[in-house]
Amino acid sequence: MTAIDLNADLGEGFGRWRLTDDEQLLSVVTSANVACGFHAGDAATMRRVCELAAARGVTIGAQVSYRDLAGFGRRAMDVPPAELAAEVAYQIGALEVFARAAGARVAYVKPHGALYNRVVHDEEQAGAVVDGVLLADVTLPVLGLPGSRLLELAAKSGLPAVTEAFADRAYTDEGNLVPRGQEGAVVTDPDAVVERSLSLARSGTVTSRSGSCIEVRARSLCLHGDTPGAVELARRARARLEESGIRVEAFA
Amino acid sequence: MTAIDLNADLGEGFGRWRLTDDEQLLSVVTSANVACGFHAGDAATMRRVCELAAARGVTIGAQVSYRDLAGFGRRAMDVPPAELAAEVAYQIGALEVFARAAGARVAYVKPHGALYNRVVHDEEQAGAVVDGVLLADVTLPVLGLPGSRLLELAAKSGLPAVTEAFADRAYTDEGNLVPRGQEGAVVTDPDAVVERSLSLARSGTVTSRSGSCIEVRARSLCLHGDTPGAVELARRARARLEESGIRVEAFA
Amino acid sequence: MTAIDLNADLGEGFGRWRLTDDEQLLSVVTSANVACGFHAGDAATMRRVCELAAARGVTIGAQVSYRDLAGFGRRAMDVPPAELAAEVAYQIGALEVFARAAGARVAYVKPHGALYNRVVHDEEQAGAVVDGVLLADVTLPVLGLPGSRLLELAAKSGLPAVTEAFADRAYTDEGNLVPRGQEGAVVTDPDAVVERSLSLARSGTVTSRSGSCIEVRARSLCLHGDTPGAVELARRARARLEESGIRVEAFA
Amino acid sequence: MTAIDLNADLGEGFGRWRLTDDEQLLSVVTSANVACGFHAGDAATMRRVCELAAARGVTIGAQVSYRDLAGFGRRAMDVPPAELAAEVAYQIGALEVFARAAGARVAYVKPHGALYNRVVHDEEQAGAVVDGVLLADVTLPVLGLPGSRLLELAAKSGLPAVTEAFADRAYTDEGNLVPRGQEGAVVTDPDAVVERSLSLARSGTVTSRSGSCIEVRARSLCLHGDTPGAVELARRARARLEESGIRVEAFA
Repeated sequence: MTAIDLNADLGEGFGRWRLTDDEQLLSVVTSANVACGFHAGDAATMRRVCELAAARGVTIGAQVSYRDLAGFGRRAMDVPPAELAAEVAYQIGALEVFARAAGARVAYVKPHGALYNRVVHDEEQAGAVVDGVLLADVTLPVLGLPGSRLLELAAKSGLPAVTEAFADRAYTDEGNLVPRGQEGAVVTDPDAVVERSLSLARSGTVTSRSGSCIEVRARSLCLHGDTPGAVELARRARARLEESGIRVEAFA
Repeated sequence: MTAIDLNADLGEGFGRWRLTDDEQLLSVVTSANVACGFHAGDAATMRRVCELAAARGVTIGAQVSYRDLAGFGRRAMDVPPAELAAEVAYQIGALEVFARAAGARVAYVKPHGALYNRVVHDEEQAGAVVDGVLLADVTLPVLGLPGSRLLELAAKSGLPAVTEAFADRAYTDEGNLVPRGQEGAVVTDPDAVVERSLSLARSGTVTSRSGSCIEVRARSLCLHGDTPGAVELARRARARLEESGIRVEAFA
Repeated sequence: MTAIDLNADLGEGFGRWRLTDDEQLLSVVTSANVACGFHAGDAATMRRVCELAAARGVTIGAQVSYRDLAGFGRRAMDVPPAELAAEVAYQIGALEVFARAAGARVAYVKPHGALYNRVVHDEEQAGAVVDGVLLADVTLPVLGLPGSRLLELAAKSGLPAVTEAFADRAYTDEGNLVPRGQEGAVVTDPDAVVERSLSLARSGTVTSRSGSCIEVRARSLCLHGDTPGAVELARRARARLEESGIRVEAFA
Repeated sequence: MTAIDLNADLGEGFGRWRLTDDEQLLSVVTSANVACGFHAGDAATMRRVCELAAARGVTIGAQVSYRDLAGFGRRAMDVPPAELAAEVAYQIGALEVFARAAGARVAYVKPHGALYNRVVHDEEQAGAVVDGVLLADVTLPVLGLPGSRLLELAAKSGLPAVTEAFADRAYTDEGNLVPRGQEGAVVTDPDAVVERSLSLARSGTVTSRSGSCIEVRARSLCLHGDTPGAVELARRARARLEESGIRVEAFA
């Protein structure tokens, strides 16, 4: 039987501000990408999300980011590799304390926002993220885009490299994400998102923007949690997967 | 033979800014209070200080603070206890990753600046600091002022409570520190500081402001590292202690 | 004919996060307390709120705060007066540029959150806020609580001191606000809030917690904008005032 | 008689940290690029530097930066233009309040660090900086590199575009700065720096890295203030200029 992981970004508030419906999402996903304070996520929120995740048996991952609260980690930054590696390790360590206190542990690392996009191609920053993970724990899986420099360098360093796909994003015939901002980059029809989730999980394929059936092999599907209707859509996708005999379970 | 620990605040730069001569101080002290990013201390600096400390066999402690870079953690803040506890744990966890990567570990916790002063008397915040330490590690010693609420509550919670004294600060007849800002609060004569260090370490006594010999029992002496001549003074104090047959060694 | 001002806190998002429905509130209030970046309010938001306010003829005020994004300015801080004065002036200046660019100007200053509460009684910090306002503009009105040290010192310094009242907060017989956290501190019945608004505006009186009719003279009513139903309630209050022949207009 | 301006970065501390010897530098330069809080420069420091500058008749400029205290503004960031423009205006406004309080005004704008380098070539960000300046004051001169997109777009928008040169940096035959990190990028011999200052001021020429005499026309010379011996070198350069009959005076 095929298994798929469902991951979502959680704990993305800061102080007075909230963004994601953490409680509801934690009843759907199997892996929680917890913000670690650099783009979002204050200490009290991190603690609470770790407690909730541990109580529900959801795997905890460190969602590491550039240090950029004002930009929510969405602005690429030319951070020197040694600094970036240390910042990645810092965030993992900070989250680890709350995961452990909740009886769990940080079980993987996923870069956020602009850092996520940058380490698809940027050798130097991808290497810095890997170095940061290695500083924290030489056995920690890294979650990212298939074919990214990040996963390539992670694998080279002996870290488990775990692939993810996006049911609500359009793909090119070459299997790349259609950049946000381009026409049709985001799939907005909920039914289509549900069916694409199933196709990705069952056969490792999805229909590209041009209508071809392309291969996108991924161990995890990323669900977006910060849009209206996100929780309901995530529930439907999960139900469809389970009805179809797909095992929904964490990779780590 | 009597043993005394020498501790100092280290890694108190941030980004482009430096404050303490970390390399030199690490050749004198036995315990390093490493800033964890809330009042000072960026991730790359934390990493470097942990590596230097581990290489020299200096014990690493987490110097936790209010979140206040602009005020260097010197402005008291009414942080709700749950937030404060989480922030303390966050800082310990972040430092732990660098201590472990350097082959060491975070071996104690010491509050910084305004938080240090506040938890002498403030039951609620002292309890929050203890809660934060417990979240991170239920065996971690807490370093603070003899008679402080912090040490009292730490001991009640089963955490080792370690006392420290200040050779360069004046004491009242009751054994309290003369508040900064008051006449004679700081002992500036280097010879006097050296002799007071010896007296505190050897007999657990020091001359009070009024000239009485008072008892101040402490397992550690705090040396200040951010003043001109600080390193040289620290060296002299250490030499004097060792010549006098005092064992200078970490408490943890 | 009696005149009353309606003020509300606006622009209290930061980067990705939103809190207040600025557009809707600006169609109701006559004075906008715009966050200036220290507890909330990034530069782009400040610009947008100033443009919207100016377009609707709403008066712009600087809502100044402690530097505390993580705590939303709600944690009292022992900021030395010279620093606090400079921080107040900094925030006013930053907002002034957007007000001017929108064809308006910063027309008053109101402290936010913990600073607002502190300067009711704290002579030193109240004086620092006044000093900060004077640095920026010696003619700028200060909005605050009747009887507060802030308004007293502002008036002494020649700054117009403008009083405000809260229709949704309970008052003691002495005319003080019942502290949040106490039973019945907040009036939650919308009808009661509307009627209290009218009473405060028309006769300068309100029913105290114990049921007495007390005097609370205020030139402005503060409406809260960050609760569900806030905009609708504000609209109702304004309509009731206008139907009753009260002129709703800015004080500045 | 030829006139030259001497500018330096000032007020680049933050809270507890200091970097530049502001008092000494203000006795040498004619224009002070004052940090505005985004890469360095807290409110109290900004106030003090403005007071010192005004007292000495030194012109005050806003040294605007990316929002990046941890990186001292030296890490390029992909800030969307509308945000960047607003952040530039915010910084100018914040400084203006202290300049005015000191009886002066913000008389020009100069980007700092990574933003300075980026707007040499980046059309979008150069345009955003110009937009930010225009928001604040449509008559404000912009100081930058000859031939930069920044100065080009500033001039197009009607802002005075003022050129600067660096006596302690090597130039290519094409008149560009040799990038830091390359061999010989920085001229370290004090005598050479002094003579290059004179040559740049008197004839608008300097010897390139390859030994050619090239033209670098600049109305201002930038002196670096954060290196040991910086103040003494600045004094020598100024003395040499004045002895040679060059008028040392602000451009604004």
